[in-house]
Amino acid sequence: MADPIEFYFDFSSPYGYFASTKVAELAARHGRAVIWRPILLGAVFKITGQQPLPTIPLKGSYAKHDLARSARFFGVPFKIPSKFPVAGQVPSRAFYWITDKDPVLAVKLAQALFHAYFAEDRDISNPEVTANVAGKLGIERDPLAQALNDPAVKERLRTEVDAAIERGVFGSPFLIVDKEPFWGSDRLTQVEKWLADGGW
Amino acid sequence: MADPIEFYFDFSSPYGYFASTKVAELAARHGRAVIWRPILLGAVFKITGQQPLPTIPLKGSYAKHDLARSARFFGVPFKIPSKFPVAGQVPSRAFYWITDKDPVLAVKLAQALFHAYFAEDRDISNPEVTANVAGKLGIERDPLAQALNDPAVKERLRTEVDAAIERGVFGSPFLIVDKEPFWGSDRLTQVEKWLADGGW
Repeated sequence: MADPIEFYFDFSSPYGYFASTKVAELAARHGRAVIWRPILLGAVFKITGQQPLPTIPLKGSYAKHDLARSARFFGVPFKIPSKFPVAGQVPSRAFYWITDKDPVLAVKLAQALFHAYFAEDRDISNPEVTANVAGKLGIERDPLAQALNDPAVKERLRTEVDAAIERGVFGSPFLIVDKEPFWGSDRLTQVEKWLADGGW
Repeated sequence: MADPIEFYFDFSSPYGYFASTKVAELAARHGRAVIWRPILLGAVFKITGQQPLPTIPLKGSYAKHDLARSARFFGVPFKIPSKFPVAGQVPSRAFYWITDKDPVLAVKLAQALFHAYFAEDRDISNPEVTANVAGKLGIERDPLAQALNDPAVKERLRTEVDAAIERGVFGSPFLIVDKEPFWGSDRLTQVEKWLADGGW
């Protein structure tokens, strides 16, 4: 079987959320699996010197408009959260802690966290909220709370972020297909063609 | 007839070039005209604090890759010019000087200048080169050389750039369709849907 698609995203990235609702089906259409890899754009922006989208003059206000319109275009429930952006440490650590034990459950958790934040306006940077979302999937509260403060889990996330930067990942969503990098939910069309044609 | 599409671009923007090869046909499919409006991204970046794409760590090297791949995706002849980016004053002034007399010829000139820069690696920031490109379209050299130094033509370009910023234009390509703003060659799919459905 062909290599899996690597899907990098930040839990606070709306375009990452849009891609998260499409990537599994897209991959499946071409017989591919997906490896989900949450990262922290804050760490990336320190290197690229970029600012969070909402804070950039002109671009920030366009982005709000584009997000709402793109959500309708993609047919995805969406509103800009009251608190936006938020730090991604809590949901990302929860994800990596679960994925080593049960990668299928971890993907469900990622999808549920994205939905909680961007469709239900729940602040997933709050450990209580992430625990509630995880609880609905049968993930126990106490071990999760412990994991969120576990130095090994924290280190795991840092390692993933560093490795992503090392590979040239600088945005969200960012997909790597057979070593070919694609940045942005608007590149899913090119990803689809790449998978179908084996490059061009 | 419905309002024309306003098409903002910088002559040094490869994604602007890609869009320039598609926008006329796209508009025609929906019975729309296009108003072409070259601007200077340098002036915009002073406000948004953005840097030219090639200079941004990680993003810059990805951009080179994405440009080559997107050119193949769009089926457009392309190579990254030896001198990139270049200042857009000369080709933009040439454009505005012509468009007041003959807007159809001005569009042909814009297309020829984009092609010279991105397909033939000719430095269109050089007045000689722009004059040669214009000459092929029957535009006389001396009046053009004069126009490029005419304070009124210079002022015309400044006014256009200021007006663009005033309207929220911050990138290239940037299209405005019935007051709806679309940024990026990757938004042409949404523009097409917008024209077909009258918004969504």
